[in-house]
Amino acid sequence: MIIVKGGVTAPKGFLANGIKAGIKESGNADLALLYSELPAVAAGAFTTNRFEASPVKVSKRHLDNKIHQAVIVNSGNANCANGKTGIADALAMAELAAKAIGLDAREVLVASTGIIGKKLPIEKVETAIPSLTSGLSSARGSAFAGAIMTTDTVKKELAVKVKLGNTLITIGGACKGVGMLYPEMKTAKHATMLSFITTDAVISKKMLESSLEEAIKETFNMVSVDGDMSTNDTCFVLANGACGNKAIVKKDKDYVKFTGALKFLAGELAKSLARDGEGATKFVEIEVAGAKTRDDAAKIARKISTSSLLKCAIFGSDPNWGRICAAAGSSGVNFDPDKVDVYLGGVKALSNGSIAQSYSKEKARPFFKKKTVLIKFDLKSGKASAKAWTCDFSKEYVAINSEYST
Amino acid sequence: MIIVKGGVTAPKGFLANGIKAGIKESGNADLALLYSELPAVAAGAFTTNRFEASPVKVSKRHLDNKIHQAVIVNSGNANCANGKTGIADALAMAELAAKAIGLDAREVLVASTGIIGKKLPIEKVETAIPSLTSGLSSARGSAFAGAIMTTDTVKKELAVKVKLGNTLITIGGACKGVGMLYPEMKTAKHATMLSFITTDAVISKKMLESSLEEAIKETFNMVSVDGDMSTNDTCFVLANGACGNKAIVKKDKDYVKFTGALKFLAGELAKSLARDGEGATKFVEIEVAGAKTRDDAAKIARKISTSSLLKCAIFGSDPNWGRICAAAGSSGVNFDPDKVDVYLGGVKALSNGSIAQSYSKEKARPFFKKKTVLIKFDLKSGKASAKAWTCDFSKEYVAINSEYST
Repeated sequence: MIIVKGGVTAPKGFLANGIKAGIKESGNADLALLYSELPAVAAGAFTTNRFEASPVKVSKRHLDNKIHQAVIVNSGNANCANGKTGIADALAMAELAAKAIGLDAREVLVASTGIIGKKLPIEKVETAIPSLTSGLSSARGSAFAGAIMTTDTVKKELAVKVKLGNTLITIGGACKGVGMLYPEMKTAKHATMLSFITTDAVISKKMLESSLEEAIKETFNMVSVDGDMSTNDTCFVLANGACGNKAIVKKDKDYVKFTGALKFLAGELAKSLARDGEGATKFVEIEVAGAKTRDDAAKIARKISTSSLLKCAIFGSDPNWGRICAAAGSSGVNFDPDKVDVYLGGVKALSNGSIAQSYSKEKARPFFKKKTVLIKFDLKSGKASAKAWTCDFSKEYVAINSEYST
Repeated sequence: MIIVKGGVTAPKGFLANGIKAGIKESGNADLALLYSELPAVAAGAFTTNRFEASPVKVSKRHLDNKIHQAVIVNSGNANCANGKTGIADALAMAELAAKAIGLDAREVLVASTGIIGKKLPIEKVETAIPSLTSGLSSARGSAFAGAIMTTDTVKKELAVKVKLGNTLITIGGACKGVGMLYPEMKTAKHATMLSFITTDAVISKKMLESSLEEAIKETFNMVSVDGDMSTNDTCFVLANGACGNKAIVKKDKDYVKFTGALKFLAGELAKSLARDGEGATKFVEIEVAGAKTRDDAAKIARKISTSSLLKCAIFGSDPNWGRICAAAGSSGVNFDPDKVDVYLGGVKALSNGSIAQSYSKEKARPFFKKKTVLIKFDLKSGKASAKAWTCDFSKEYVAINSEYST
């Protein structure tokens, strides 16, 4: 597997665009379109929030269709808590895009991100559609990645190539965060993390769903910025088969290779979300090892990753590892604290549940000053492990989020 | 029931003291002692964190004793993750106090609060004991409340009187917060919220435990500052019977009255913790109504109260109520979002799951500018309700917690 340039338009047969439609008060780009020249199979994963945004509801229904060729996305407005009007507007987005490209509306998927509880200005979308569709190009993947951003400071895109049989297939992706970020998505025929993945591999819808499910569990569902789950989290994968590899229709060697590449791509995109988390000055990776089950390890890693206290300590380069223990201990997982080892970077802080003899704050501080902070929590009670990613908690996070809707 | 002056020494027969022992680098008071002149029955509730601090372990064992007469507390050091030395030090605190007053060590309860993973300087406690015990006085309740503080900016104490039969009994209390505050305590014979309650009522140990259990559920266990559960949360109630009321030995009218007064006192103390939350500029009350069960209502209220995003919005006086919905929707409680009404102060923001016609941000903003922000989330699906309390999330919180252990 190799990393190549580009994002959602790196695979063959995908065009994209991103433009300014006037939804955002800032005047930044806010409307994006992804188009597959060939009919594609699609799989989606969505937020498990009880308050589901309208585009989530519409896309879940549209995913019942066998094929899909487009995804329309707006930023600057979540189209959530807008009642029937919200549903109508989400549907209208799909219909407007479909009509302009010559598709059935059910072949179009929809996603939104931005403020909750404000009517989507659908008339602005309508006005922008001609310019959006006419500008579709394989060179505009990066414009797509730009137009889906909200508080993101950098575009997040990536593409990889992997060989299936004798065919080199490509997987590309773009995603945005970077607040209200604690996805717990589930795949459903029927997360505000938005993630769009494309591939030119030939794969059945069923296998694509299964591959996505495997991938998000260890990637997007393990990243957090603030522990606040969005009403809009969404991840779509479109596979258009343009590469002509031997079709993946069962969990064979090619499936495993494809899923490995998808997991790598999704993992890198997920980490890029944490790196660009609102107000973030540092990236944090938490590894929980020695657990009885992967679920136990994941629960503990996720709990540590959402500790406001730990994240403030990391902001201040203060190796206050007691907060790691307190967070892990409140995860609901039953473990023996007297067996636990904790490492800060390369420094052992906790050994069998009490301060390591060799530990000193002076040794640990340099590792907390780095741009990437690595924390390892070893339960020494089994063989399962999991990693979670987050960022530090800065005054800037508070600044960004104290005046978001004004 | 009436509120009276004082705290833990307001009930008859209780003496207290708080002094500087040199545990805190700041040089502030850090060692406190509570003493009942009569043998008292005691009940306790403790953190459910898997990482239990040493004083929690020791106090759980000591609670097996039938009677108790003293509680010794230090601030500035949590005595957690200190292994066998930690246990020995917590036990030594009890033993030193017991010896100086003439009690059995098992009649003494212990609590600690402060940094995790630092050895408790037991020699400083030992040196301070003579001064601590010789200064015990009914006039030193407030000194006790002062010496248990960490990042608290104000002392938190309260006392109430209630009539049982013809006898006026008194309940007094003191507590401290105000970070790593998200107690989920359980009573156990066997939260760093520390709370100490005294009463001169005659009540059996069993009834006292039951009364405490009822009280903490709706009070201390519904307050949060940051959603980080401590390794040290502890609540003790000592009842010394000095008032001579007809003994409460079953769940009769007097039990109900006593529990009502205890709940009121604990509720006010809990709210005072949120009001003085680290960096707090505002107090927030979240009421969830119309739920099928009290547990559902409590879960949703707790989840809303820990939303970093909502708390930042309240800091900025930004009525970004979408964050209330997003938090509620991720509580794990199954409810119909299309039935939900949300009120910000007196202003209806959400009606049946979508923006209220009458809502405008200009109407809501004044209620978000107040020192007390009231949020109501009505599920309209049942008769159960619950209240949770928190504070806003300020840049000062980040400042306090980015350099705590240095």
